[in-house]
Amino acid sequence: MAFSFYLPTRVFLGEGVLEEYGDFLGRLGRRALVVTGRKSAVTSGAMADFEELAKRLGLSRVVFDEVPANPTLETVAKAVDLARREDADLVIGIGGGSPMDTAKAVALLVPNRAEAGRLYEADLPELPLPMVAIPTTAGTGSEVTQHAVFTLPAKEIKKGFSDDRCFPVLALVDPRYTYSLPLDITIDTALDTLTHAIEGYLSRRATPLSDTLALEAISLFAGQKEALLAGKLLPATRRDLMYAATLGGMVIAQTRTTILHTLGYPLTYSHDIPHGRANGYLLAAYLEFIRPAEPVKVDNILKVLGMASVEEVAELTRCLLPPPGKFPEKELERMAALAATNGSSLAWTARQATPADLCNILCRSFG
Amino acid sequence: MAFSFYLPTRVFLGEGVLEEYGDFLGRLGRRALVVTGRKSAVTSGAMADFEELAKRLGLSRVVFDEVPANPTLETVAKAVDLARREDADLVIGIGGGSPMDTAKAVALLVPNRAEAGRLYEADLPELPLPMVAIPTTAGTGSEVTQHAVFTLPAKEIKKGFSDDRCFPVLALVDPRYTYSLPLDITIDTALDTLTHAIEGYLSRRATPLSDTLALEAISLFAGQKEALLAGKLLPATRRDLMYAATLGGMVIAQTRTTILHTLGYPLTYSHDIPHGRANGYLLAAYLEFIRPAEPVKVDNILKVLGMASVEEVAELTRCLLPPPGKFPEKELERMAALAATNGSSLAWTARQATPADLCNILCRSFG
Repeated sequence: MAFSFYLPTRVFLGEGVLEEYGDFLGRLGRRALVVTGRKSAVTSGAMADFEELAKRLGLSRVVFDEVPANPTLETVAKAVDLARREDADLVIGIGGGSPMDTAKAVALLVPNRAEAGRLYEADLPELPLPMVAIPTTAGTGSEVTQHAVFTLPAKEIKKGFSDDRCFPVLALVDPRYTYSLPLDITIDTALDTLTHAIEGYLSRRATPLSDTLALEAISLFAGQKEALLAGKLLPATRRDLMYAATLGGMVIAQTRTTILHTLGYPLTYSHDIPHGRANGYLLAAYLEFIRPAEPVKVDNILKVLGMASVEEVAELTRCLLPPPGKFPEKELERMAALAATNGSSLAWTARQATPADLCNILCRSFG
Repeated sequence: MAFSFYLPTRVFLGEGVLEEYGDFLGRLGRRALVVTGRKSAVTSGAMADFEELAKRLGLSRVVFDEVPANPTLETVAKAVDLARREDADLVIGIGGGSPMDTAKAVALLVPNRAEAGRLYEADLPELPLPMVAIPTTAGTGSEVTQHAVFTLPAKEIKKGFSDDRCFPVLALVDPRYTYSLPLDITIDTALDTLTHAIEGYLSRRATPLSDTLALEAISLFAGQKEALLAGKLLPATRRDLMYAATLGGMVIAQTRTTILHTLGYPLTYSHDIPHGRANGYLLAAYLEFIRPAEPVKVDNILKVLGMASVEEVAELTRCLLPPPGKFPEKELERMAALAATNGSSLAWTARQATPADLCNILCRSFG
């Protein structure tokens, strides 16, 4: 059995990377479209650092700051229009997963002169514009993946697309941009990271190398779980969570995600539960479900987390997250049925899951 | 402090990768220059697999099979001439480090219309031709690095060059190509891998991520050291050594090497000691020298190797390698003085080394 590893993004990680390594950005283009959310790029301090860098590099730029949480293709289309009007030759995503994912889509659509609706088609022949990722949360790992996820209101789902040409060319990962994140977002996004690492480690697509990276990410999370519980977010904690998030991204760049993420999407789409938080609620029940198929790997995860049982994982998420809501059984069944339509996610999950299994995971998490 | 990670090579590793993933190669060019040594590409079975793949892809190819061990720029120049005559648009290195490194140099020189002597200059503006690496030894890691090393007879040294554009686009790493390697070459190259991982781990350029990869490579070597001692080279051993070699390459792609490699070069150049073997002889004395500067990391290495002391490392290399020759003190001093001229290697070594220190490492290894 052969395995692959592909991670072409040039990553710089640490305090001050825009100042120290921003010159790499100057070689990529002259007219940048900067894609951000409404606030986080500014409040994080990333925008000010980027502006300073852009002035130093003489980079012209136009800002699209209308990316909401869980963006739709409508948002993508607006950003594409702006990129075309401004003749952008470089796209920079600053923010959490939503702006970075939007930036990836724009970078691919512009040179292909394609409408946003064609994003999920395989026939976009032109290479994307170079795309640079500057994350302001420690969770998504989008700065080092070829994946992007959008909300499709017509289908009432969130749907990912993946294209190996869509890896950011450059990721400038400065943990200082997460210093101002409130505790709840810090926890939600840290749990997103943890599930990336755990799902990747337990995926049928896991490789020896992705496993090494996944265990390292889990270990970094484990080292900071007391800090998260205590709400003590010192720079060393921020740094480890940021590094863990980037490692988690490197993992799912190889493995993709599995049913945990797929079950989380309708919780976000239909019930407004933040993405990472939804994953956190599902984690313990997911581990219990996978355990019979991967007993050794689940034990390894617990060992690295410093825990003796999956119940301790449940206890941790109970302590970290607000109490999960209750859903009527019909709604749990609807969400499970929706998740069961995602064939590839099911195929990569280590244990074969029926709609009843999926519903059971939701029940245990929200019942 | 910030750190970087860059590894743009698409890697496939496992038995049968040429057959399973060779299609990637077909997208890179139509007229390949295949760079090999005089025998290893054929005896390993790699050439037959490549020929089959090339036929299936309709890839035209011309073979340059004149790369010796420790190639000079003359060899590079001959291969460049052939590539130009044949209008090659793709370069494929099949073999150990020497053919792969030669292939990298050819790929860079051809589009720059540059003579081989200009390889070490920074002003080659054109992007290299795409280069594909198919290793037939488990040692060099060149399949995933931007480095290449050549022998410069006029200066009586081996000298490396590094260019981030020179990473192979694709590495097809099949451990079966090492099945026919004799035990001594297997041991020499495995020790090359081990020193890549150890030097990278102890380098001033080490990063958290390169450390994770380095410890994994050391652990894989440790898992196979009994097999090497017993000369029992089953497929599982071959596979782990190949994977370790690729990980070791990923490490030095981030960290480069340090004085151990630099001290090894004159042993190869002037005394014909195979590269990996020279590194093996030097390993224990190098660890003793570095220990005061990096006591925790040296202990970690010993722990992962399953050893209690550096003396056990010395014992292992004594058991694995033929007895080292003796050199007159003058010659040891000459080689130490030569190594002391490599400023960057000294700068990246964790402990400041004087020429006397370097001579002492040589003395302890060969005295």
